[in-house]
Amino acid sequence: MNSGSVLRVGVTCGDPHGIGPEVVLKALATRPAHRLSLRVYGPVEALRLWARQWGLPWPEGTDLEWVDIPWDAGHTQWGRPSAAAGRWVAQSWEAAARDLAAGEIHALVTAPIMKKSLEWAGHFLWDHTQFLAARFQTRTVMSMITPRLRVAFVTAHIPLRRVAEVLSSALVVETVRIAYRDLIRWFRIAEPRVAVCGLNPHAGEGGLMGDEEERVVRPAVRMLQSEGLAVEGPAPAETLFRQALEDRWDLVVALYHDQGMIPVKLLDFGQGVNLTMGLPFVRTSPDHGAAPDIAGQGVARPDGMRAALALALQILDAGRTPA
Amino acid sequence: MNSGSVLRVGVTCGDPHGIGPEVVLKALATRPAHRLSLRVYGPVEALRLWARQWGLPWPEGTDLEWVDIPWDAGHTQWGRPSAAAGRWVAQSWEAAARDLAAGEIHALVTAPIMKKSLEWAGHFLWDHTQFLAARFQTRTVMSMITPRLRVAFVTAHIPLRRVAEVLSSALVVETVRIAYRDLIRWFRIAEPRVAVCGLNPHAGEGGLMGDEEERVVRPAVRMLQSEGLAVEGPAPAETLFRQALEDRWDLVVALYHDQGMIPVKLLDFGQGVNLTMGLPFVRTSPDHGAAPDIAGQGVARPDGMRAALALALQILDAGRTPA
Repeated sequence: MNSGSVLRVGVTCGDPHGIGPEVVLKALATRPAHRLSLRVYGPVEALRLWARQWGLPWPEGTDLEWVDIPWDAGHTQWGRPSAAAGRWVAQSWEAAARDLAAGEIHALVTAPIMKKSLEWAGHFLWDHTQFLAARFQTRTVMSMITPRLRVAFVTAHIPLRRVAEVLSSALVVETVRIAYRDLIRWFRIAEPRVAVCGLNPHAGEGGLMGDEEERVVRPAVRMLQSEGLAVEGPAPAETLFRQALEDRWDLVVALYHDQGMIPVKLLDFGQGVNLTMGLPFVRTSPDHGAAPDIAGQGVARPDGMRAALALALQILDAGRTPA
Repeated sequence: MNSGSVLRVGVTCGDPHGIGPEVVLKALATRPAHRLSLRVYGPVEALRLWARQWGLPWPEGTDLEWVDIPWDAGHTQWGRPSAAAGRWVAQSWEAAARDLAAGEIHALVTAPIMKKSLEWAGHFLWDHTQFLAARFQTRTVMSMITPRLRVAFVTAHIPLRRVAEVLSSALVVETVRIAYRDLIRWFRIAEPRVAVCGLNPHAGEGGLMGDEEERVVRPAVRMLQSEGLAVEGPAPAETLFRQALEDRWDLVVALYHDQGMIPVKLLDFGQGVNLTMGLPFVRTSPDHGAAPDIAGQGVARPDGMRAALALALQILDAGRTPA
């Protein structure tokens, strides 16, 4: 990163019918001290109205600038996906993506969307990750960052019965390479220590309970080791996460969603941040959805959004300081 | 249980080539105060010799009686499975099973075995659970009990790729029924609150990522509810375990090994106790194996064995007190 220019973190507000705008307002109002700039892509007039309705302070500060994406607050249907909301979301993403591509912003923090809104607006199968991966032509890896754990996922949002068939040595290798680079780039860990979970009980117990450890995971680990990466495994997930808490690993690689998400949610409820690895910039988001059931009531907890913002600021800020 | 007679907890020493004898000695020497009797099925002379070698106190007390199963300490090959060791293990199990059947002992705490020893002694595919289930003609359920969590398993030691195919509504129903009865019997919970995990990410998210929740788990939960059981689910595992920590559930039902074992090991390392549900008596064991790599050195930690003994004593002791 260029330490001579202003580093800016972009923030999008997510679906205007969800809790996104609310948690953005709350997170901005209680943002941590930092030395960067923030650029928020949001419906400024609507946000002012809602802030008054919910009794929230308007976020002030010279570190803060707004890119107005107008939205008619009068037409908001809290909690309901809509094509109009989906179009608005796509507009805000486009504005942020243009600024990312132009080097105007250097990180992106995104509030939660509703997939249905994007679908109804004609953007099928779109979510933040797919949009950004396509826009910036990279392979991405989902990771969760908490105060005590870093977890990267080889597979994530697929049925459990498909995990074993989708899993391949190539996929494990690619996931770890991407995660490894980001541990160095974003977390400034010179030689990351990475451990890969097994798939089966007791990591297969020497082939007694499944062969994916020997057939798929171990060859991948060997290849990564031959590239000079400090990668170990496969080993039982329950052991690796425990060791990670004792700082034996900088990252645990989970093979499927629940394997990594159970420890994350169990240990750091509300403080887990989703970090998309593999992009040319930092992208974080809170560890929750648009919560349609409580949208518009002013009662949403901003912990996740605040943690996502804090992590992006922290990574970028560390990047301009000599290590 | 008959509060008029003496209640006795049996203890077996596991494979004589593993850490079993050592952790039994250590656990007995530091056993909690209790009002019951203990009957240990062990190689008394060999144990006396080893206690001296390892500098361990000999467990004394009027609550303690020994059933000697002779073993030639001179022929011990630490860490190595052997047919002789397997025959000795089977002998100790038989002695304990006879006493269980005769009502001489009312709970069994077992130290870890090596499966290879039993195999070489002609007992293929035997472990404690299979032996006891066959001997007492019952269906059993594996559960883990820790100070903060109770978890029962619908499937356990099978490859992950087989979980979805093995899973059935009937299996979920049977597992919960057995666990439910033992929560009442052993933990004296009048109306247990039980939650069943989903199989897929976000418990399938309404069918978006897998259909086992709707097709298999929900019908099982409905059937159990119609029987009057306070069972909920399916719900995402990461949510249920968090709620269990906040005392919302008396038991979480995991659908496969890692789903339940990750939270157990992460939260209560060394204090998790394996409780076999469904037997006519209490059976506990430590949450670790025979540790061949450190057997015979006197360095094994007895925490798991001590916790297993303490839980059996506690359950039995509570059983003789009016609730």
